[in-house]
Amino acid sequence: MPGPLADFLAAQAWIAFIVFARVGGGIYTKAADVGSDLVGKVEAGIPEDDPRNPGVIADNVGDNVGDVAGMGADIFESYVTCIIGCLALAATMGDAGIMKLLKADSGMAVKDGQMWLMATPLILGLFGAISSYIAIKWMGFLKDGDPAKALRFAVLIASVLFVIAAGIFLVLPAVPLTLSLWVPIIFGTLCGIGIGLATEYYTSSKPVFEIVAAAKTGPATCIINGIAVGFRSVAIPLILIVAAVLISHKFGDVYGVALAGVAMLSTTGIIMTVDAYGPIADNAGGISEMSHLGSDTRAITDRLDALGNTTAAIGKGFAIGSAGLTALAVFGAYTQTFTGAGTKIDLSITNPMLVMGVFIGAILPGLVVAFTMQSVGRAAGLIVTEIRRQFREIAGLLEGKEGVKPDVSRCVEISTKAALTEMRTPGLVALITPILVGFAMGADALAGLLLGTTVVGVVLGIFMSNTGGAWDNAKKFIEQGLVEGEKKGSDAHKAAVVGDTVGDPFKDTSGPALNILIKMVSILSLLIAPLL
Amino acid sequence: MPGPLADFLAAQAWIAFIVFARVGGGIYTKAADVGSDLVGKVEAGIPEDDPRNPGVIADNVGDNVGDVAGMGADIFESYVTCIIGCLALAATMGDAGIMKLLKADSGMAVKDGQMWLMATPLILGLFGAISSYIAIKWMGFLKDGDPAKALRFAVLIASVLFVIAAGIFLVLPAVPLTLSLWVPIIFGTLCGIGIGLATEYYTSSKPVFEIVAAAKTGPATCIINGIAVGFRSVAIPLILIVAAVLISHKFGDVYGVALAGVAMLSTTGIIMTVDAYGPIADNAGGISEMSHLGSDTRAITDRLDALGNTTAAIGKGFAIGSAGLTALAVFGAYTQTFTGAGTKIDLSITNPMLVMGVFIGAILPGLVVAFTMQSVGRAAGLIVTEIRRQFREIAGLLEGKEGVKPDVSRCVEISTKAALTEMRTPGLVALITPILVGFAMGADALAGLLLGTTVVGVVLGIFMSNTGGAWDNAKKFIEQGLVEGEKKGSDAHKAAVVGDTVGDPFKDTSGPALNILIKMVSILSLLIAPLL
Repeated sequence: MPGPLADFLAAQAWIAFIVFARVGGGIYTKAADVGSDLVGKVEAGIPEDDPRNPGVIADNVGDNVGDVAGMGADIFESYVTCIIGCLALAATMGDAGIMKLLKADSGMAVKDGQMWLMATPLILGLFGAISSYIAIKWMGFLKDGDPAKALRFAVLIASVLFVIAAGIFLVLPAVPLTLSLWVPIIFGTLCGIGIGLATEYYTSSKPVFEIVAAAKTGPATCIINGIAVGFRSVAIPLILIVAAVLISHKFGDVYGVALAGVAMLSTTGIIMTVDAYGPIADNAGGISEMSHLGSDTRAITDRLDALGNTTAAIGKGFAIGSAGLTALAVFGAYTQTFTGAGTKIDLSITNPMLVMGVFIGAILPGLVVAFTMQSVGRAAGLIVTEIRRQFREIAGLLEGKEGVKPDVSRCVEISTKAALTEMRTPGLVALITPILVGFAMGADALAGLLLGTTVVGVVLGIFMSNTGGAWDNAKKFIEQGLVEGEKKGSDAHKAAVVGDTVGDPFKDTSGPALNILIKMVSILSLLIAPLL
Repeated sequence: MPGPLADFLAAQAWIAFIVFARVGGGIYTKAADVGSDLVGKVEAGIPEDDPRNPGVIADNVGDNVGDVAGMGADIFESYVTCIIGCLALAATMGDAGIMKLLKADSGMAVKDGQMWLMATPLILGLFGAISSYIAIKWMGFLKDGDPAKALRFAVLIASVLFVIAAGIFLVLPAVPLTLSLWVPIIFGTLCGIGIGLATEYYTSSKPVFEIVAAAKTGPATCIINGIAVGFRSVAIPLILIVAAVLISHKFGDVYGVALAGVAMLSTTGIIMTVDAYGPIADNAGGISEMSHLGSDTRAITDRLDALGNTTAAIGKGFAIGSAGLTALAVFGAYTQTFTGAGTKIDLSITNPMLVMGVFIGAILPGLVVAFTMQSVGRAAGLIVTEIRRQFREIAGLLEGKEGVKPDVSRCVEISTKAALTEMRTPGLVALITPILVGFAMGADALAGLLLGTTVVGVVLGIFMSNTGGAWDNAKKFIEQGLVEGEKKGSDAHKAAVVGDTVGDPFKDTSGPALNILIKMVSILSLLIAPLL
């Protein structure tokens, strides 16, 4: 069977790349970040991003490796998967299904109509790119205002332009598609905006102040409240996804659901822009510290950085939300593989194989979380040892003697090696389990595994991204003096720092790794389906 | 429709009771525990369980309310649900299904065979009760040995006796049932023992020392490692459940799966005994402190108490594991309601309504966790205020002046009231959501909700119980001097105390509440099914 096998190898390469970019990037950035902070801030008592700290450059590089390159690869991969899924659905659709999605009076041949359905996700992608470009240009006019408003406004502009363009496209006489398809496009876009606003609320609004209030009674209550806020924050995004799927399905069947996914991610351009804002602001802060620009500059970059936590959480919300939105299309495509080949499968939840597949699938997200969290711990330990060694062996470094510089490249090297080594276990677990379940327990169990991993992965993914963002901002709010009676160094601040440190691997390593897990299991299941 | 409505009202009362006992009990015990510790240990610097602390009695009462009465209600409810489920399955089974489970040469009428199938879960219950009784008597011989071994041995004896009795029952000539049914009974029992051993490993063995090692670098790394250990601990119990279900299904269809559930919980007597050991040891420690029996006695009770954390986690593992094991039987019974009435339902995972139901169901466990964790925080706050007031207003109390006693009944009253008030929100969410989804989105969506809540609930339930137990023991191991270079009051101990405080609501409030959530959603779904 050369076809599926070739696909399998090609997908392997693709998977290897996204795992590298996302999971490896996540481990890299947090190992450098946590390691530098532990020795620099806690042990040596020098400020964050102090140029004497040998790990600072690795930390700044990590922001790009994990939060720009990793996040970019993640969202882009989600987007491409959505487009391909929608295109594949159109390509395998039956004649009756196609006719339902064409204008009643189009008079077009079914095959031509199908070509239009296949082209639509690509055309929407084009609209999305142009809309994002216009919105980014627009930001120039807003540059003197509140940065949070500017970013929010830019996303809104891109979305509105995109929806209008899609509507005009559908009413064009040359386009044979029914105007009903506009509904999934509108609700997919609204779902994305809704997830963004909900994320903003939970990571930078009232709930963060709840965490701050809890931090006043110590680190434990800060952790407890952060976890509670994180779990609460899962509800709204999932309800939005459910609403978008049900409405889209009503107006465009499974194709409509896939189209809603494409619409939600069509403004990927602006989402990635907004997302990259966070690490840029973070690095700006680092550079201002390293080049001794003074506390005024640092105060500005800190304020920008707090907003960055929210924008980063929004990007992650989009990525993981799209996994939920496209789940149904993936199940549809999976089933199609068997029904198309005339094989009978029982995907009912009364089938023990399927239900047991769901339970096995439900184990995977937790394992990936456990492995990646401990990876960060181990990799950070290596950085700690190296920084301690440099402080001890390089004379005059810690004292800040003129001309004495740390060996920053060693820390970059250690982070890189650790990231490459540590991503192996979670990557292998996510790779081997579906293959094992598929061949040992069959197609029904593999479908269950897909469902179990997706559902638990989406829940834990949103939870971890938002909890981490909220903890980070709880700390930042105290530092910025937004909390009466608290400031940097107070007991509440120390408690919030504990929350922030726990939150670091939550939001930047384990949470995003779950999105990759879901995508990996989806792609693998679809690939090995023809071999079962 | 008076039948289902009457059932509904009766079940309402039943649900109200278990929610009260388990969720209310969980909030009660942790509010008193955390509140007393925060003011007593942290603010006033007096030892845990010091008689001057007005919250100590409420804390000790709470151990009984939550961990004996609550846990007992929980396991007992699981057990009864398993028996009723198995009985109901046998009662609604088709003739062909019944014949398959009878001895080939029994020559018995189908209706009589069905009666035997219905009686078997009750007879197994009897065997389990007798086996547990013998095992408890046996413990007398082991009283001078290692308590961990004695408890483990007692569970093993009860299980072996139970399996032998079940085998003898099946080979009796008068019993027309096939010997194949022994296989589900054996594997159900093994699954329970396996969950117990896995729980013991993760809450009192190598993983706890990993957490202790992490605690040496501070509270944040202690929390991160505890969460990683907790998520890893989910894998083995779920794999055991999957194996037990698949084997049981092979040898006895869905009835076999239900029978495995009954077998797993048949030793409830000994499990509840072992579980009650924890709070008894905890209270013994409290009483030894209050009656000034000296540090030698306290050292003994502390050692017993550490074992209690593990036995408590085992009890919770049994309760939540049974929810996983009986999931399939519940789905089967749910479907039966419709197919029996001739209504067509589509429970395939390509049905959008079902998949969206799964996503809504997946929200519920997180919400219950969030609500119950914050409930503990709020209720503990009330206790804190009251204890502070007494220390301030009752002259000589804090100084330990002879004859001056705290007003302990006020704290008991506050805990009781808070528990009753705070369990309302999580209870209502778990009550209203299934009803809403069932009537607004239909039977397919409700089936999905049931699956989503069960899977996410089982994963989070095991995670929270084990994480909490492991954190508590990490602290206890340091206090007992099992960790070189660390002792009570050291930095690592302080970090472990943070882990323990976070773990308190994890293991004693939110984790157990998830088991109740799953049971509540199951019962509700089965009850409203005929009305849909």
